[in-house]
Amino acid sequence: MVSKNQIKLITGLQQKKYRKQHKLFIAEGVKVVQELLNSNFELQELYTTQSVFQGVTTTKIIPVTDVELKKISMLTTPNTCIGVFKIPDEKQIPEKGLIIALDDVRDPGNLGTIIRLCDWFGIEHLICSEQSVDVYNPKVVQATMGSIARVNVVYTSLEEYITNTALPIFGTFMDGENVYTQQLPQEGIIVMGNEANGISEAIAQKVTHKIAIPRFGKLQETESLNVATAAAVILSEFRRNFSGM
Amino acid sequence: MVSKNQIKLITGLQQKKYRKQHKLFIAEGVKVVQELLNSNFELQELYTTQSVFQGVTTTKIIPVTDVELKKISMLTTPNTCIGVFKIPDEKQIPEKGLIIALDDVRDPGNLGTIIRLCDWFGIEHLICSEQSVDVYNPKVVQATMGSIARVNVVYTSLEEYITNTALPIFGTFMDGENVYTQQLPQEGIIVMGNEANGISEAIAQKVTHKIAIPRFGKLQETESLNVATAAAVILSEFRRNFSGM
Repeated sequence: MVSKNQIKLITGLQQKKYRKQHKLFIAEGVKVVQELLNSNFELQELYTTQSVFQGVTTTKIIPVTDVELKKISMLTTPNTCIGVFKIPDEKQIPEKGLIIALDDVRDPGNLGTIIRLCDWFGIEHLICSEQSVDVYNPKVVQATMGSIARVNVVYTSLEEYITNTALPIFGTFMDGENVYTQQLPQEGIIVMGNEANGISEAIAQKVTHKIAIPRFGKLQETESLNVATAAAVILSEFRRNFSGM
Repeated sequence: MVSKNQIKLITGLQQKKYRKQHKLFIAEGVKVVQELLNSNFELQELYTTQSVFQGVTTTKIIPVTDVELKKISMLTTPNTCIGVFKIPDEKQIPEKGLIIALDDVRDPGNLGTIIRLCDWFGIEHLICSEQSVDVYNPKVVQATMGSIARVNVVYTSLEEYITNTALPIFGTFMDGENVYTQQLPQEGIIVMGNEANGISEAIAQKVTHKIAIPRFGKLQETESLNVATAAAVILSEFRRNFSGM
């Protein structure tokens, strides 16, 4: 049974200001919820039409009907469960290894996909500029497919951060050097830019290594790759290079 | 001025059955519309709040107000124009070069992103199984960012197609061979699977080369990459390999 106040709280969590106020976020669907339950995320409440969850304190489980779930879900075809989790404190970013930095990535699907990529390629820390989309946006959580449980995402002034780092800073530019023919290091910050405008002028000035993914199409009209697919190619190259393959 | 019948026609084109019936599709936004105008796609009508289009027969331009545009747009914040274009006949797929084949890719964003990737990496032909999302779905058209004008997309029985080809058939599997350490050919069909289920059993049996993108994350929980980012890595490897980089 879901109360009116609970419906108000949960649907409110689709908005950033209420997530910030309550320090809570929502995750939908068995797969994502189960991955968060298996991680360090702390469950507040679990609304579910089924009772398939192991390791959850029963007082935190709130059985709901399909009709009730539809009222609190952001999906048109809701899954069987919605978990409300506490937003953890951000962990410090260590000055080592490969780190991805996003310069105002705005699309939830892109951020979610990039988090999934980080997880696959063993990138533990992701820095987001303050204008980037919120990682606890339900669409981002959904697109991570559970990888959000394994990647530390920190919001900060990107300009300040990269001004103070000693690590090399890589960024993708049309006139950058061919990423396939370079020796790529094991440590560094890889900056990925905004969907429409790419890497901003202020950040571009701090980039120490301009790289490019060669274009193989006949025509010159293809302007750019989607930011998540560009990140896929770049991360693949860094990892392949270092592993000597 | 937009008539009631025009509103009905254009909003109807968001659905596949009406696109099929009228042999028309819609594209929104100056960038995508302009790329289609510059290509072989034939314009039926152009609804626009501005008059920025060159090379368009004026009888095809229908000036609209912002309020009218909102009525025919599928976007919550409509752009300045909507083009209605004729769906061209499918072109034959030649038995040469690199070809991407999609085995029931259902998400419009994924198909759009893959078409953009094909354009970047110089893949001219894309085969979709009959259950794959329709390429003229407005969300697909949008996600291609105009690349739809440069990639030939054909719907066919994928099983039949790959049974009859002489080209090698590549597919991504968890237990496939490391894509980084292989000599990849200049010609072949690269099969990408459904978002939830991967490559179907019937198609998997016809794959002649099982490949894998190595996972670098510490944990084994990351199940898979998003299909578009996996396609990005695979295409990057094929092109890098062949260009000898």
